[in-house]
Amino acid sequence: MLALGIDPGTAICGFGLVESRGSRLIPIKYGSVFTSPKMRMEDRLVKIYDELDALMKEYKPDIMGIEKLFFNRNVTTAIPVGQARGVVLLAAAKNNIPIVERTPMQIKQDVTGYGKADKKQVIYMVTKLLHLPEPPKPDDTADALAVAICTTYCMGNAAFRNGIR
Amino acid sequence: MLALGIDPGTAICGFGLVESRGSRLIPIKYGSVFTSPKMRMEDRLVKIYDELDALMKEYKPDIMGIEKLFFNRNVTTAIPVGQARGVVLLAAAKNNIPIVERTPMQIKQDVTGYGKADKKQVIYMVTKLLHLPEPPKPDDTADALAVAICTTYCMGNAAFRNGIR
Repeated sequence: MLALGIDPGTAICGFGLVESRGSRLIPIKYGSVFTSPKMRMEDRLVKIYDELDALMKEYKPDIMGIEKLFFNRNVTTAIPVGQARGVVLLAAAKNNIPIVERTPMQIKQDVTGYGKADKKQVIYMVTKLLHLPEPPKPDDTADALAVAICTTYCMGNAAFRNGIR
Repeated sequence: MLALGIDPGTAICGFGLVESRGSRLIPIKYGSVFTSPKMRMEDRLVKIYDELDALMKEYKPDIMGIEKLFFNRNVTTAIPVGQARGVVLLAAAKNNIPIVERTPMQIKQDVTGYGKADKKQVIYMVTKLLHLPEPPKPDDTADALAVAICTTYCMGNAAFRNGIR
């Protein structure tokens, strides 16, 4: 089962492909799409859409996981993050990839065993669980891999799998 | 010059096509894309994208206008509105349609002559300026026509036209 995890953003959009074979987790590909603030917003969205669309077409993930967002703070970034998230959801739907949404707490819980873990701990566990030579950079890539790991766990749970979302 | 105005939203996404011939404004087509809250978010975004993409391909507008959003209040809707806005911007960019962003105040100023006009006044003036038999429904359609009118005014302004945004 191949899961794609996404950490959506306009400047940096992290992605991580993780395959689960039994209890093993294998990192297949990971990185981030970067767009410059000097680009027009619509061109940034096209770049994010096109790069993720190409990734989906190449690797054909069975499922895509994305963080469920709540904006009780940092309101100014809600619109641009929402815009990036919109084109990511569109790309998945156009490629017929089912989507699961996980809260930040569920992701932390699944990856570190503690729902209020800090960023460092998440990155440390992602590196450990995937046997990576070093912590993935930037943090957005590590976050996307954390979402992918969490998504493989969801899919290993039959009750969850039978009623996606 | 044919301008497409958009009032982005997930449940209701208003659109209005207005042609300017000299000082005359002619409504070409207007309405709203509706999506049910029972649909999955990604399917709602696909519906908005596909319907606007088809509209853009059929009418080939010269320019698209969209409201510039600020969220100092109503934070909970910022993410879904951002998502809808993201797929609208993507559709315009994929169809090579230049985009102008106008603040709510600029739109009200251009349509009613008063930047703090209320909703009723905007709808009244949209109906008058376009010689419509009755006020467009829902309000989202009227708002999209207001953005389209404002966009034709922008484009009539050579200084603005020479440096879009």
